Amino acid sequence: MKISIERATLLKALAQAQSVVERRNTIPILANVLIEAEGNTVSFRATDLDIEVVDRAPAMVERPGATTVSAVMLHEIIRKLPDGALVALTEDAASGRLTIAAGKSTFSLATLPREDFPVMASSEYSSNFAAPAPVLRRLFDKAKFAISTEETRYYLNGVYMHVSTGDVGAVLRCVATDGHRLARIDAPLPEGAQGMPGVIVPRKTVNELKKLLDDDSAEIAVSVSETKVRFATPAITLTSKVIDGTFPDYTRVIPTGNTRRLEVDATEFAKAVDRVATVSSERSRAVKLALDEDRLILSVNAPDSGAAEEELAVAYGDERLEIGFNAKYLLEIASQVDRENAVFLFNSSGDPTLMREGNDMSAVYVVMPMRV
Amino acid sequence: MKISIERATLLKALAQAQSVVERRNTIPILANVLIEAEGNTVSFRATDLDIEVVDRAPAMVERPGATTVSAVMLHEIIRKLPDGALVALTEDAASGRLTIAAGKSTFSLATLPREDFPVMASSEYSSNFAAPAPVLRRLFDKAKFAISTEETRYYLNGVYMHVSTGDVGAVLRCVATDGHRLARIDAPLPEGAQGMPGVIVPRKTVNELKKLLDDDSAEIAVSVSETKVRFATPAITLTSKVIDGTFPDYTRVIPTGNTRRLEVDATEFAKAVDRVATVSSERSRAVKLALDEDRLILSVNAPDSGAAEEELAVAYGDERLEIGFNAKYLLEIASQVDRENAVFLFNSSGDPTLMREGNDMSAVYVVMPMRV
Repeated sequence: MKISIERATLLKALAQAQSVVERRNTIPILANVLIEAEGNTVSFRATDLDIEVVDRAPAMVERPGATTVSAVMLHEIIRKLPDGALVALTEDAASGRLTIAAGKSTFSLATLPREDFPVMASSEYSSNFAAPAPVLRRLFDKAKFAISTEETRYYLNGVYMHVSTGDVGAVLRCVATDGHRLARIDAPLPEGAQGMPGVIVPRKTVNELKKLLDDDSAEIAVSVSETKVRFATPAITLTSKVIDGTFPDYTRVIPTGNTRRLEVDATEFAKAVDRVATVSSERSRAVKLALDEDRLILSVNAPDSGAAEEELAVAYGDERLEIGFNAKYLLEIASQVDRENAVFLFNSSGDPTLMREGNDMSAVYVVMPMRV
Repeated sequence: MKISIERATLLKALAQAQSVVERRNTIPILANVLIEAEGNTVSFRATDLDIEVVDRAPAMVERPGATTVSAVMLHEIIRKLPDGALVALTEDAASGRLTIAAGKSTFSLATLPREDFPVMASSEYSSNFAAPAPVLRRLFDKAKFAISTEETRYYLNGVYMHVSTGDVGAVLRCVATDGHRLARIDAPLPEGAQGMPGVIVPRKTVNELKKLLDDDSAEIAVSVSETKVRFATPAITLTSKVIDGTFPDYTRVIPTGNTRRLEVDATEFAKAVDRVATVSSERSRAVKLALDEDRLILSVNAPDSGAAEEELAVAYGDERLEIGFNAKYLLEIASQVDRENAVFLFNSSGDPTLMREGNDMSAVYVVMPMRV
């Protein structure tokens, strides 16, 4: 293999590959990126056996071929090269090395045979559809914070992407929950997604996906089977196993009869919660909300360290209510609100509370109260 | 005690106090800041028993007094208050609480009695002098990186500030070393510093001092005794114990007979060292410098991962020389150079190497070579 490629192009193509590679792993070749050059394209493939990413870039291919080298080291070298450099990658099969040359710098890296690189088996996908990057980004970004980190509840360690019926008909829906809070985000169902099997997309895949969805104008090709999901742009293909488990029936967690309505400026609310939570004990992080006619009093009482209280002017017309929450959860859901006021719907101090943005039902959050 | 103070003023005064406070300590009151209000000034005092900082700020003192509260929590609360807020601090002796009120927020923090707060004993200082902030900043900033972190060589865990004779007469000199590299920085001796005892200023004090020296126009009052050092501006006084030990005789470590002279652009040199070091083993970080007529070849050979080589155009007129260094040490001393080219003076591949900025003898660095 012998290719020439512009440094910036190469750096971009390697960025996602080196991020998929796990820093600590016991199988040496999983630390490597598989470089394949043919025609006028070079592709970079990396995997952790659960996720595989392939990034393609244009290059001058003088001699086609393929080899594998340390993804992190190659990325570091290219990152440190001066901007604008033209990089030559040359495989020397005899010495088992890949030479990287740019200007007056020459590097040679140990290779491992391409045959040993585990390429993910190709699958039959039962559903294929396309969606604009911003739509998918919203679905995953707004749900992500609620993903559980408890390894024993592995079926909650991801975002449940499935087809459902929303307020305005069929929707593509992402749900995540850790039992304390839940996020349910909807988008109009894309053409071709009907009948798609529901899949739990793992946390790491959701994070890697973020980079794919950066470009606002990109159209993402999505393919789904019972065991795998694939997201692709013309340059990048991200394939991931899905979590082999059953996502719990979340619908019964979402309250429908909550009638006590609080409307509040989300930014002011978040700042006030953050302030009063300063004195809360690190363990419980409990904040009390006391609601009265157009008035919200946030308070914390931590006998050891102190107390805090703050009043906010809000819209609330129901009877007096006192309810407690984990400050961290309140801050997280308040930070999801970006256009309108936050609307909270309460039932009693022991029941789950619903939060949404204005009257928009396409993003709904549920948070469990705590005793204060 | 009852005072009103502008939020920004209060925040600035608390910033240094909360930074001196150790996050983990077994004596509860050491987590607190002592607030003392009298006249139209409030002072904030914090200590870790080795360093004491007192920060004074103007305030409307309605009722003089003193109390102590958690430095970190008070700083956090003030930081989170909206910009421009007027903050009222009121001590309620009956409840043992300090109330912090601003706008519609009220906080109350547990206090500990001011009598229990350990105030550092005042000392007789044998030397007192003044120096502009930028002069002291340069002395400590450029020496700091070479401070040893080895706790068993406690006498190297600081910067040795003392009076000496430099190229152009009497100087105030800062020296730090960890046995592998050494920094020696000189400034013209300030009036009144003659006869000052040499003191080893601990690493934490050097770091805290940095904030005091931020203001380019500030004149710093320095007081030194055998056991303590004090740095003061009109607003802040930083007092620190010095390390009770003897700084080794560093003068014999600084080579005087090195004649092989390499001159190189420090930025280009640092970038090239950083690039070739990418493939070095994490343990040794060894980089080889091969010098020949106006040519420097940097190289790394790490059998496991790979090799790297880069050529730099330099000014060198002596005979061929090969010498190895720890890449980290080379990068650190190269980053001290800010105006001119880096000048290296070598003897042989086994001898300490000297580095300075152009022909400026007021900042000299020594780095030990390693076998490559």
